[in-house]
Amino acid sequence: MTKNSGSVGLVRPQKIAFEQPLALQNGQVLPRFDLMVETYGTLNAAKSNAVLICHALSGNHHVAGKHADSDKHSGWWDNMVGPGKPIDTNVFFVIGLNNLGGCHGSSGPLSNNPETGKAYGADFPMITVKDWVQTQARLADYFGINVWAAVIGGSLGGMQTMQWAIDMPERVRHAIIIASAPKLSTQNIAFNDVARQAIITDPDFYAGHYQEHQTLPRRGLRIARMMGHITYLSEDGLGKKFGRALRNDDYQFNYDIDFEVESYLRYQGDKFAEIFDANTYLLMTKALDYFDPAVDFDDDLQAAFKHISAKCFVVSFSTDWRFSPERSHEIVRALIAAEKSVQYLEVLSQHGHDAFLMEDAAYMRGMHVYMGKIAKEVA
Amino acid sequence: MTKNSGSVGLVRPQKIAFEQPLALQNGQVLPRFDLMVETYGTLNAAKSNAVLICHALSGNHHVAGKHADSDKHSGWWDNMVGPGKPIDTNVFFVIGLNNLGGCHGSSGPLSNNPETGKAYGADFPMITVKDWVQTQARLADYFGINVWAAVIGGSLGGMQTMQWAIDMPERVRHAIIIASAPKLSTQNIAFNDVARQAIITDPDFYAGHYQEHQTLPRRGLRIARMMGHITYLSEDGLGKKFGRALRNDDYQFNYDIDFEVESYLRYQGDKFAEIFDANTYLLMTKALDYFDPAVDFDDDLQAAFKHISAKCFVVSFSTDWRFSPERSHEIVRALIAAEKSVQYLEVLSQHGHDAFLMEDAAYMRGMHVYMGKIAKEVA
Repeated sequence: MTKNSGSVGLVRPQKIAFEQPLALQNGQVLPRFDLMVETYGTLNAAKSNAVLICHALSGNHHVAGKHADSDKHSGWWDNMVGPGKPIDTNVFFVIGLNNLGGCHGSSGPLSNNPETGKAYGADFPMITVKDWVQTQARLADYFGINVWAAVIGGSLGGMQTMQWAIDMPERVRHAIIIASAPKLSTQNIAFNDVARQAIITDPDFYAGHYQEHQTLPRRGLRIARMMGHITYLSEDGLGKKFGRALRNDDYQFNYDIDFEVESYLRYQGDKFAEIFDANTYLLMTKALDYFDPAVDFDDDLQAAFKHISAKCFVVSFSTDWRFSPERSHEIVRALIAAEKSVQYLEVLSQHGHDAFLMEDAAYMRGMHVYMGKIAKEVA
Repeated sequence: MTKNSGSVGLVRPQKIAFEQPLALQNGQVLPRFDLMVETYGTLNAAKSNAVLICHALSGNHHVAGKHADSDKHSGWWDNMVGPGKPIDTNVFFVIGLNNLGGCHGSSGPLSNNPETGKAYGADFPMITVKDWVQTQARLADYFGINVWAAVIGGSLGGMQTMQWAIDMPERVRHAIIIASAPKLSTQNIAFNDVARQAIITDPDFYAGHYQEHQTLPRRGLRIARMMGHITYLSEDGLGKKFGRALRNDDYQFNYDIDFEVESYLRYQGDKFAEIFDANTYLLMTKALDYFDPAVDFDDDLQAAFKHISAKCFVVSFSTDWRFSPERSHEIVRALIAAEKSVQYLEVLSQHGHDAFLMEDAAYMRGMHVYMGKIAKEVA
């Protein structure tokens, strides 16, 4: 075992240009766009071993490995993707991308608007999950991939996976839908709107053109992230991690930090507000709100799934209250009713919604076994 | 039945001055204070029929009735308090007050600071649940009430009820603890801190001295309320009320209002931000965070309850996820272990935490029956 055993090692992102216009769901046309991409492993001659990783709200193309030895952290799903890992890069050619509208190198609010010569900012069009599937299909074309061995995603990534299976059934052999939901609940939408309002009403937001004012809506983005973070963690997990532990010996009787959980949340908020683009955050939350594949089928999810040909693996986590197991049950029930092949794993976990990024043993084993089955198909 | 049957009718608040210094839990001494109070019904000769209503985060002294015939709304617990209602003003002398630190007439951040001649603002001392019990005891003294027939409260009001039973066992015959918890969970504290950070980082907050700057931290208070509101409602209830109903025929692809729930929440936030004082909101959330009566008893709630003599009635609501039934179970288990008299009612409800203000039949009937028992004792 070398030092890098299990890791894809050093990786380099590439920016891929797509020069054909893209008609978006909102009616606008994007004349061109770039996607920032990383790949791991090798595409086989039959081009049958390609796996697409779809990211969630704040994810990006940097799925695994490091960009430099000095990097403190590896990619966001490094525990899942690598040689010998559940998504085994000795077997699969894995593609991670930053979604259109993102803030990590793909075309988005931070990109140059050719019409104005300035950053798009708030003028970048609203992107939907359906739009992402179109862009990811062009990405597949770029690599000459006709069919994905698997499309895989957690949370908002799971929504892209479902949309892939619905919109391009002939191009998805396996759809792995983790910690997701067939559409947001009212409560989900409500939390998203509070986050958006925190950002939009930040005086430094400037109607989304904060870059022109050489500032960032840090306050709003920080509040959005703090609140979001609470919803990613289970009540039990948060309790076990921090309880009512105090920073000091006794109550401070002021609005500084009393409880350790306050320190943790504020730190998470501060960090996020410096590195993530507010317009992208807004756009991603709207993509979540709008996702509802059944809406085109008279609100009948079974009908939406009728034409998919992918085999599906659905995973949920017991303490996830953002997208609870019940939301995965809705997906599974509709798949079964539509007479599709579906396997379902409900993982007992302390980690809430964030569990899809963690390493609960049953989850890692389940992914390993399922991907191992796919590996045999592509061998 | 007259038009006002069941209503206490027109009521008038009174401001009562307490001129003796009050030593607070945080070490400060308040030289004097006022409490804004309303009373309903008549104190009997034995002064044995007095009931104290403790309010929750945003409540006040105006519990029942109207101040003018033209008032659109009655007091916040008008469905519970009145002639023939569960807390029957034909039987009981009911006192509602605005807690110390409040913003509805009692001494608080909006009051004049005698030391500066200006409003206290952020200089008003931090008040705790224990402090409130002290002030409410002085209120009892003012009315010549040695023993409350009942102390009653929901949510933060239930915490005051518990603290009363613990700190002054000889003065409470019945403690009615509704939709409450023996202390906040980590998640509860986390949500409170996000709310506080939204307010404190609002540029119009001015370190709590916004009055001097002729402004209000509306943005922050609005976000705090919107988020809080989500946690007061059940996920199911919110779903049943709004679902994914759109304001218009189709998605707007902008950040205005798409979903009806967004409109509802923003309205709630806007309204609250105009009428509620931000410093009071901060103070109330801290009182919630700090409440933990077991902490003085080696974290042993049973020991905290050891010396109480009140008979207890504990009520919880099935879909309350802010203070779930499990939190009430903790109270009930400790009371039973401490060999206290306790009755417990768990109400099947759609209304989440807000259910304590609603009229689920089992809840209203349970309160009616329990208060009826007390009525026989005071007759």
